[in-house]
Amino acid sequence: MIDETHDSKRRSWVESANLDGCDFPIQNLPLGVFRVQGENRTRIGVAIGDDILDVGAWLGGNSLNAYFALPATQRRDLRRKWSITLDRGATKRPLYSQSQCEMLMPAVVGDYTDFYASIHHATTVGRMFRPDNPLLPNYKHVPIAYHGRSSSLVLSGTPVKRPAGQLGEGKFGPTRELDYEMEIGAFLGPGNELGKPIPIGEAQQHIAGVCLVNDWSARDIQRWEYQPLGPFLAKNFATSVSPWVVTIEALEPFRTSASTHDVAVLPYLQESGESAFDITVEVWLRTRTMTESVRISRANFRDMYWTLGQMVAHHTCNGCPLRPGDLIASGTVSGPEKENRGCLLEMTWKGTEPLRLPNGEERTFLEDGDEVILTGYCQRDGFARIGLGSCRGSIVAG
Amino acid sequence: MIDETHDSKRRSWVESANLDGCDFPIQNLPLGVFRVQGENRTRIGVAIGDDILDVGAWLGGNSLNAYFALPATQRRDLRRKWSITLDRGATKRPLYSQSQCEMLMPAVVGDYTDFYASIHHATTVGRMFRPDNPLLPNYKHVPIAYHGRSSSLVLSGTPVKRPAGQLGEGKFGPTRELDYEMEIGAFLGPGNELGKPIPIGEAQQHIAGVCLVNDWSARDIQRWEYQPLGPFLAKNFATSVSPWVVTIEALEPFRTSASTHDVAVLPYLQESGESAFDITVEVWLRTRTMTESVRISRANFRDMYWTLGQMVAHHTCNGCPLRPGDLIASGTVSGPEKENRGCLLEMTWKGTEPLRLPNGEERTFLEDGDEVILTGYCQRDGFARIGLGSCRGSIVAG
Repeated sequence: MIDETHDSKRRSWVESANLDGCDFPIQNLPLGVFRVQGENRTRIGVAIGDDILDVGAWLGGNSLNAYFALPATQRRDLRRKWSITLDRGATKRPLYSQSQCEMLMPAVVGDYTDFYASIHHATTVGRMFRPDNPLLPNYKHVPIAYHGRSSSLVLSGTPVKRPAGQLGEGKFGPTRELDYEMEIGAFLGPGNELGKPIPIGEAQQHIAGVCLVNDWSARDIQRWEYQPLGPFLAKNFATSVSPWVVTIEALEPFRTSASTHDVAVLPYLQESGESAFDITVEVWLRTRTMTESVRISRANFRDMYWTLGQMVAHHTCNGCPLRPGDLIASGTVSGPEKENRGCLLEMTWKGTEPLRLPNGEERTFLEDGDEVILTGYCQRDGFARIGLGSCRGSIVAG
Repeated sequence: MIDETHDSKRRSWVESANLDGCDFPIQNLPLGVFRVQGENRTRIGVAIGDDILDVGAWLGGNSLNAYFALPATQRRDLRRKWSITLDRGATKRPLYSQSQCEMLMPAVVGDYTDFYASIHHATTVGRMFRPDNPLLPNYKHVPIAYHGRSSSLVLSGTPVKRPAGQLGEGKFGPTRELDYEMEIGAFLGPGNELGKPIPIGEAQQHIAGVCLVNDWSARDIQRWEYQPLGPFLAKNFATSVSPWVVTIEALEPFRTSASTHDVAVLPYLQESGESAFDITVEVWLRTRTMTESVRISRANFRDMYWTLGQMVAHHTCNGCPLRPGDLIASGTVSGPEKENRGCLLEMTWKGTEPLRLPNGEERTFLEDGDEVILTGYCQRDGFARIGLGSCRGSIVAG
């Protein structure tokens, strides 16, 4: 539902929020958890331009879990209040400069689920390992997912130590095939009780907001361990999450049709209306020798085969309970072309076609000192640009 | 380390604890979380015979997480204190009858990991689906595991609703192949920080206690969904946990040699000493028409290919953080013979050889109204019998 909070003419008294290209204009109002430098206190805030508005007066607690537990109507009401508070016409209030704050994990994540919703990613990876039969027979029917680990979720900026593991029979050592995966994460809203599926028609109300997720992956560990129960140590050494949760309300103007399916899905997954979101996602890389990062890929979240609503309906169709603050991630967001591939495994064809960087360096997989920066944003004529901020991580030696 | 708390001559002033065949003699002292009928208050207790000693004076909180966070030395000290308190020579204290208490989940489980540590189970299941090559090449090198879901962990006694799901292409409905899996669960102790593996020599100190786990499984859902990322909705509709956590200290007299490996394991998994535990596990079934349950299988935890210590060392070798109260389960405990098989998939050869019950009924998979009861106990000449209690669940229609 698009309302006055999305009006592109709206301006804030926070001048940095009104600048072109800003991630956090008054139409965005993403939520995060922060600490002011020199203080112990944990606060909940809304990002506005370069600053943060402390919203503790409206929201209690040390995490966004209480916010995620609210019904969608109350989340919308809060958005309206914050929009009015930050509007040019309102009285100025004290703000904290983002540069003087430390961001914290936005939620206590009970369970973290990772989907595999990009058919482009699944097909490309499938083609590498099964050229005759790239896409498995279940793919167009089942929104494939696995459970990730919540204890190894880390905030953007946390260094990522190169993990050790079994790299094949009798081989143990630091991974030689360290990769990123560009994903969109969704924090869940009210959720459901054990045994009570969420119908597809209500599924979207259970998505409270989105963030950027880097599902770091060790491809050599993964190849050796993943049969028959799926990825485990190849993934659970670190999964980075961006600090600002962009609410589903902020994304309303960027709704779009989900990608077309040539195979009918079962009724419990049939969704009506504009159920996908047009979010451009980019991967940037900065090696030790670079001063500035370079963009190495770009894709769009609307190209996913399965929508967030379908993920929620599928996840709960067996009665599995989702709790407020649980995180689901989309799986690697890849598009149809080579420049749309959201991980190095795809971009370098499992390391056989090195990526050439503008400064002459090459990469098959990540090297120590590399920093990966994920960004995401929504743009549409007649609406303010909405940014997701960034999700960063640098590789340190194992 | 065996000490005076294991002395089989020790008797308690709680007479029911001194009876032959009792699960909870003074040598056991398992921990649980309970509520007295008619009260709201959550208490922590030690089971003794048919009763419970409230140990709130020694342990704070509403769950065992604080206990699990203690170093192994402090856990041992507490055991000694409770043993002295309940010894025949000590002053009697108020107790609560178990029959008048409701048991609660023993811990807030952050992450739940399920291993696949029985080579007998892996081989039998492998033979069904890959007769020429039953055991995958990684099995003897990698303690295979996947992440389960913590939100669907339920306490013993919680009814298990038959889950619906995709049973194959275009088919959706209640599972027709509902199964149990008899497993041993281990609650983790202090744990480790992100990026700091737990060496195999210290791994056992990070196991605080064990319980019984029923990893309910929908085989038709599993078969269709599990490629390429492993089981998901086939498992996360419910996983039952027994209420009493038998401490690792209580199990000391039942240490035994781990099963021999014909293939050398990597150094980070090489364990010395008696690193396995001799725990007999049994599966009992009671159908709607039965008044008493019947035992349908029996196996021993010492026959697992991988030990709990190896599971901990493997889980953390990439730096994955384990937290106090995290749960790892062993995977189905099966032995070499047909009567040792810990799930119906194995016992009925994926439903093709029905199990014949003494009253003439047959089962391929579970039917509505069936109750599955897991039990476990340790016995050894010269030592008191230590019981794990039971883990129960009845199937209700979906």
